[in-house]
Amino acid sequence: MTTPFAQGSREEFTKTITESDIYGYAGITGDFNPVHVNETYAQGTRFKGRIAHGLLTAGLISSVIGTRLPGPGTIYLSQDLTFSGPVRCNDTITARVEVMDPPTQKGRYRLKTTCINQRGEMVLDGTAMVLWPG
Amino acid sequence: MTTPFAQGSREEFTKTITESDIYGYAGITGDFNPVHVNETYAQGTRFKGRIAHGLLTAGLISSVIGTRLPGPGTIYLSQDLTFSGPVRCNDTITARVEVMDPPTQKGRYRLKTTCINQRGEMVLDGTAMVLWPG
Amino acid sequence: MTTPFAQGSREEFTKTITESDIYGYAGITGDFNPVHVNETYAQGTRFKGRIAHGLLTAGLISSVIGTRLPGPGTIYLSQDLTFSGPVRCNDTITARVEVMDPPTQKGRYRLKTTCINQRGEMVLDGTAMVLWPG
Amino acid sequence: MTTPFAQGSREEFTKTITESDIYGYAGITGDFNPVHVNETYAQGTRFKGRIAHGLLTAGLISSVIGTRLPGPGTIYLSQDLTFSGPVRCNDTITARVEVMDPPTQKGRYRLKTTCINQRGEMVLDGTAMVLWPG
Repeated sequence: MTTPFAQGSREEFTKTITESDIYGYAGITGDFNPVHVNETYAQGTRFKGRIAHGLLTAGLISSVIGTRLPGPGTIYLSQDLTFSGPVRCNDTITARVEVMDPPTQKGRYRLKTTCINQRGEMVLDGTAMVLWPG
Repeated sequence: MTTPFAQGSREEFTKTITESDIYGYAGITGDFNPVHVNETYAQGTRFKGRIAHGLLTAGLISSVIGTRLPGPGTIYLSQDLTFSGPVRCNDTITARVEVMDPPTQKGRYRLKTTCINQRGEMVLDGTAMVLWPG
Repeated sequence: MTTPFAQGSREEFTKTITESDIYGYAGITGDFNPVHVNETYAQGTRFKGRIAHGLLTAGLISSVIGTRLPGPGTIYLSQDLTFSGPVRCNDTITARVEVMDPPTQKGRYRLKTTCINQRGEMVLDGTAMVLWPG
Repeated sequence: MTTPFAQGSREEFTKTITESDIYGYAGITGDFNPVHVNETYAQGTRFKGRIAHGLLTAGLISSVIGTRLPGPGTIYLSQDLTFSGPVRCNDTITARVEVMDPPTQKGRYRLKTTCINQRGEMVLDGTAMVLWPG
């Protein structure tokens, strides 16, 4: 029998988000919003350049959940996301996942999910519900 | 001056989600959960095969928001997602976005966001808040 | 101070190798050998269809080394590889890494590196030398 | 009948290794070692920035073998690799392959395989055994 994850358990994953990530993500999803793929347009926005898709940044949370905490086999039930700041090309993003409640018998976990950049600024905040059959 | 979007305005985008989408998405985010990239493992799950990442499906919503409604230049503020059913390799997913409220002066929109598969089954449900500077 | 890895420590990573992996790898390396990207040609070979690049399969070993054992920060010093069987499109490959010797003070590890397919057949065998500054 | 390759025959292939190569390779193999994809971390290493995966560089050798010498149809039997220096983003790498022995009747070749950077520094050294059915 597998030991359930304790309240407060934490894992994280860090990646520098590059142009190739943004373009690959745009190509998969079809989200060619010019704030992501048109540098001329993006220079004229408040961001002064292209930014990553919010749901691309959120994908790093999915990565922690699916490979580390709870890990392989986890089923994603829901995710609330607030995009609290821009992620620019070449920002280094750390996605953190933390177990919010004591373990239940049903294998359901409520997780605190956040992403911060290389300056420690929060760029994404949220909560996930997952099912871990492990 | 640009006319604001009326309550009930709707747009959608449809794409068949393929293995190359799932593998590309795994590669960008680092989410190599075996339910997505290990067919032998996935055959033994309730899904009887590999499924797409929930946040990959959600990306189609981002695509509608960023290119059609409200469209280019939209800033994503938040997104709530419930993953209500699996998306399997080669499922054809339609992402729908609908304006939920009468327009405000601030350019903020609350959007109903759903994804259905080729059999009309809802696979993702949620609400987005966006800012449209247009 | 970080505890060194004991002799016999093992980690693994499994992935179904798909057409999109083979084509992505060909595009990065330029290895368009027809046994990998020409199905008509490959049908006429002993393999009766396209196979994955040997060094693509070896990449799964690199993945275990770079993310699990020894893990993040590991520097690859050398790798000997014997390609002992073909990896066909859609084969599910498990890469295994095992520490061969008792730990030394210098942080150098000799690792046994193998890949097997979904039928338990060895497709790649080798030895790696790595440096772990952890 | 095809003429066998003489001892000393040489071919090479040159490519500038970019960030998109490194990220694409990480995405295919799952090797998200921070020395490859976390610029903040990599700045703190001896390399002062992200480096390419050793087996990505080795892929350029596979490219020469599979497309030039011996060329299309070649089967890779084994490869020994020593990673003798870092390959940084935007380094231009030349992979060289040279036939080491007089031809045999069995179509087996032992090949000297090296990679050098734009300053002539060796970054990878090794030997390959291949089978050429041509």
